[in-house]
Amino acid sequence: MAKELKELTPRSESYSQWYNDLVVKAELAESSAVRGCMVIKPYGYAIWEKMQHELDRMFKETGHVNAYFPLFIPKSYLSREAEHVEGFAKECAVVTHYRLKTNEDHTGVVVDPEAKLEEELIVRPTSETIIWSTYKNWIQSHRDLPILCNQWANVVRWEMRTRLFLRTAEFLWQEGHTAHATKQEAEAEAQKMLEVYADFAENFMAMPVVKGVKTANERFAGALDTYTIEALMQDGKALQSGTSHFLGQNFAKAFDVKFTDKEGKLDYVWATSWGVSTRLMGALIMSHSDDNGLVLPPKLAPYQVVIVPIYKGEEQLNAINERVAQLTAKLKALGISVKYDNSDNKKPGWKFAEYELKGVPVRLAIGQRDMENGTVEVARRDTLTKETVSMENIENYIAKLLDDIQANIYQKALNYRENNIYKVDTYEEFKEQIEKGGFILAHWDGTSETEERIKEETKATIRCIPLGNPQEDGVDMLTGKPSKQRVLFARAY
Amino acid sequence: MAKELKELTPRSESYSQWYNDLVVKAELAESSAVRGCMVIKPYGYAIWEKMQHELDRMFKETGHVNAYFPLFIPKSYLSREAEHVEGFAKECAVVTHYRLKTNEDHTGVVVDPEAKLEEELIVRPTSETIIWSTYKNWIQSHRDLPILCNQWANVVRWEMRTRLFLRTAEFLWQEGHTAHATKQEAEAEAQKMLEVYADFAENFMAMPVVKGVKTANERFAGALDTYTIEALMQDGKALQSGTSHFLGQNFAKAFDVKFTDKEGKLDYVWATSWGVSTRLMGALIMSHSDDNGLVLPPKLAPYQVVIVPIYKGEEQLNAINERVAQLTAKLKALGISVKYDNSDNKKPGWKFAEYELKGVPVRLAIGQRDMENGTVEVARRDTLTKETVSMENIENYIAKLLDDIQANIYQKALNYRENNIYKVDTYEEFKEQIEKGGFILAHWDGTSETEERIKEETKATIRCIPLGNPQEDGVDMLTGKPSKQRVLFARAY
Repeated sequence: MAKELKELTPRSESYSQWYNDLVVKAELAESSAVRGCMVIKPYGYAIWEKMQHELDRMFKETGHVNAYFPLFIPKSYLSREAEHVEGFAKECAVVTHYRLKTNEDHTGVVVDPEAKLEEELIVRPTSETIIWSTYKNWIQSHRDLPILCNQWANVVRWEMRTRLFLRTAEFLWQEGHTAHATKQEAEAEAQKMLEVYADFAENFMAMPVVKGVKTANERFAGALDTYTIEALMQDGKALQSGTSHFLGQNFAKAFDVKFTDKEGKLDYVWATSWGVSTRLMGALIMSHSDDNGLVLPPKLAPYQVVIVPIYKGEEQLNAINERVAQLTAKLKALGISVKYDNSDNKKPGWKFAEYELKGVPVRLAIGQRDMENGTVEVARRDTLTKETVSMENIENYIAKLLDDIQANIYQKALNYRENNIYKVDTYEEFKEQIEKGGFILAHWDGTSETEERIKEETKATIRCIPLGNPQEDGVDMLTGKPSKQRVLFARAY
Repeated sequence: MAKELKELTPRSESYSQWYNDLVVKAELAESSAVRGCMVIKPYGYAIWEKMQHELDRMFKETGHVNAYFPLFIPKSYLSREAEHVEGFAKECAVVTHYRLKTNEDHTGVVVDPEAKLEEELIVRPTSETIIWSTYKNWIQSHRDLPILCNQWANVVRWEMRTRLFLRTAEFLWQEGHTAHATKQEAEAEAQKMLEVYADFAENFMAMPVVKGVKTANERFAGALDTYTIEALMQDGKALQSGTSHFLGQNFAKAFDVKFTDKEGKLDYVWATSWGVSTRLMGALIMSHSDDNGLVLPPKLAPYQVVIVPIYKGEEQLNAINERVAQLTAKLKALGISVKYDNSDNKKPGWKFAEYELKGVPVRLAIGQRDMENGTVEVARRDTLTKETVSMENIENYIAKLLDDIQANIYQKALNYRENNIYKVDTYEEFKEQIEKGGFILAHWDGTSETEERIKEETKATIRCIPLGNPQEDGVDMLTGKPSKQRVLFARAY
C-alpha cells in the first residue's frame, strides 16, 4: 500500500500529471481552499529556504540590503506608468472594504457597506509603483544614490489557470529595486543581477540557463530592457527562471523622482528591478527529477544524507544507533546535513521509497553484515546505483560523492539541453520541430508582427536574444526579410 | 545643520514624540502612502532580520519546521469559530474583486464590476482558520501528530490609530500553529514556546519580561489560555511582547479535524498557536534608547563596531586604512561585525552623531596620535564613556566589551523594572500610582466585571497573572471581595 501511495504517473504517459503527482506526493505543496493559492508544505518550504539563503547571501555580497514595503498599492499608482498599468492592472486582487459585521440573523459575517475605502487598494502584483513613490522622499542628491534595496515578499496576480509553483495567484519572491545616477550604472546593475541569477541557477540548482534579452513584446511592462535566464525542462518546454529589468527613467518620471547631480543639474533617476520566485521550485523539479520522484542537487537538499538502519531486535538497533551517532558527528563536522531515520513503525523498504521520492541525494543503509564488516551501503539518488563502502574515511567519501552528484546532475541537464537546441531555417521545419519540443534557433526579421504571428500559429515565443549571440546573415523563416542573427524560440511554461 | 537633523525631542518633553523622531531619524521605518502601512527601511529591517534569524534557530532547535499558507481567507472561515470571529472579523481588509479595467476616458483604471468574487476574501489577520482547514487533510491518525509548523508572514488588521512598529495595519510576524494528540502535550507546547520567547527577549533583546497567563478578558479570541511575556517600557507603560495560546479543541471542532488515537478511538485534535511580530522592534527601541538615539544590544546590532578615522591628508588616511584592515580582520575572526566609515564627504563629528543615533554598541576612533602610540579610542554607546586603549589584543578587549554592554543594558532595564513594580492595597493608591506608570501588583476578585470597571476608570488592564505567582490572602482593592493572589496591572501599548 505504501508503495502505491508513492507511485507517480510516468513522465512518458503524462508529463504534467507526473509533475502534479510529484509535487503533492513528495509533500512539496498542495492546493488550498482559496482558488489559485497554494500551501507550501514543510519539505517544499525547506528547499525554498535553502534557495533564499543562498540568493540573499549573493545579493548582500553584491552590495544590496533588504527592506520591506507595503502589501497594498493605491489603485491610482498603478496607472501612473502607462505601460505598467496595461501589464499589471488587469488581474489583481482589489481591496474595497476594511470591515465586516455580523449579519442580521447572527449566523455569519457580511461586508460592512459603511466601511468602503475612498480609494481601492491593490494587493501588490509587483512593487515598482509603491517603491518609487517612497524613493521620491529618499532621493534629493547624487549622494543619496545608488539605492540598492531588495525585498522578500508575497505578491498576487489573479491567474485563471494555475499550477503549483509554476503559476499561482499568490507566490513568494524577491524583488530588487535599485536607483542610480546614470544610465550606464543602471544598465550595469541589471546585467550584474542577471549574472547573479545565472550563477545561482547553474551552481546551486544545477540547472543550465541561456542568458539573453527579451524582445519588445516580451518585456516587463514599463521596462526598456528585460534580461532573462531561460532553462529547458525535460519535456522540451522553456521556463523563464529569473528576469532583470533596466527601467530607464520611466518610474522616476511617473513618480517625479529627480536628483541633483555633481554639477548641480537636476535629472530623473535611473532604475532597475529584478526578481525570482517560488516558480524556481517548479524549474528545479522539472530539471532533474525522474519517475521515482524528486532528484535534488545536494546544495539545495534539506538533508543531503539519510541513514536507514536494517536490524532485528533492540540489541542490533542499539549497536547501529551508536555507530550512526559517530558517523553523523563526522558528517556534520564537514557541514553535511544528515537525517537518521530509525523510526520503528516503518519498514526499510518503505523508507527507501520515501527518501527516493523526496530526492535525498545520498542514502546510507547499515545492517548486521555491515556492522560485522565495517561497511555501509551507499545509494546515489541521481544514478540509483548502490555500492558497499568501508566505514573508514566514509565522511570524506561522502563529501566527494555529494560534489560528484551536484556536478553530474548539472552535466546531465546540460547534455539534455545541448541535444535539444536545433538550428532551423524554414518555417516548415520550425513547425515540425516545435511539436517535438526543445530550443530552436532561427532567423527573425525583428518585427513584433512576425513574432506574434509565429506565436499564434505555433504557440512558440522568442524566449530571448542570447547575450553574445553570434551575428550571421540570414532571412526570416516566415517573411524572408533579412536578419542578422538567430534568436531563441520555444514553447514555454 | 547635521546636528539639528539628528536631534530628537527629549523623552522628558514628550516620550511619544521622542519615539517617533527616533524611528524616523535613525532610519528604522517611516509611514507609507498607504494609510497605516509602514515602510521598514534597510537599517530597521537589518535588526528585524537578526531577530528572525535567532528566533528561527530557536524554533528549529525545539523541533519546528517552516511552511507557508495562503494570504487570503474565505470570509465564511472566520465565522466558523464563534469567539474568533468576534475578535478578528471586525477590522480587516476585504478583497471583493479580482480585476481592474481602463476607465471610459482612458485616464486611469476602475474596478471591473464583472469581476466580483462569489465569496469575499479576507487578508489574513491571523491564520488559525486557513491552517486548520488545511490540517484537516493532513491528520487522520495519531501517527500524523504532532504537527509543529511555523510561518513567517505579513498580516493585516485594519487599525484606526497606528504607530510605527507598535500598531500598524500591516505588520510582519511569525505564527506557530501546532497540532497534538493530547491536551497535556498541547499545554506543554504553549508553555514551552512562552519560554522560548522569554529566553529571546531577555538574552537577545536584553529586555526583562514577566511571564504570565492572561485573564479571560484579555485572551486571544478562540483560546482557552493565553500565555504572555510583558515588558515595562521607560515611560512606565507595559508592552505585550509575545503570546502563546493553548487553543484546546476549538479550531479542531470548527474545522472538524479528528484523529484516531492509539486505542483506535476518534477524538478532536488539540492545538496551540504563538507569535511575535515587528512590534518587538518598538519594544527594543523603548527598552534601551536615550535622548541621543538608539541603544542596541550587541546581539541584535546590524554592526557591532563602527570605526571612524580622524586624519589630515591622504597619507595619514592610507596609514589608518591599513591598520584598520588588520584590526577588522581580527574582529571578524571573532565573529564581530564591523563597519569602517572612511567616507570623505562627512566630518568625524557628523559620523559620531550618526552612529550614536543608530545605536552602534562600540565606536572606535583612530587618529594620528593613536597611530603613533599604538592606541585607539573606544566609545561605548550604552554609557557614552570613552577611553584610550592599546591596540594590542584590542579584539579580545572588544569581544569582552560587547558582552559587558549586552549584560549592562539588560541589568539597567531590569533595575528600572524592579524599581517600578509597586504593591498596592487600596484603589486610591492604585489610581494615584497608575498615573505615574509602572507595574502594579494588586489583589483582584477574579471577575471580569471588576477588571472592566478598573479599565474604564483608570485605563489600566491586567497584563497577566504571573507564572509561579505567590499565593497570599487578601481582598480586592475595589470590591473588597476575597482574593488569593495579586495580579499584574499596568497601562499598556
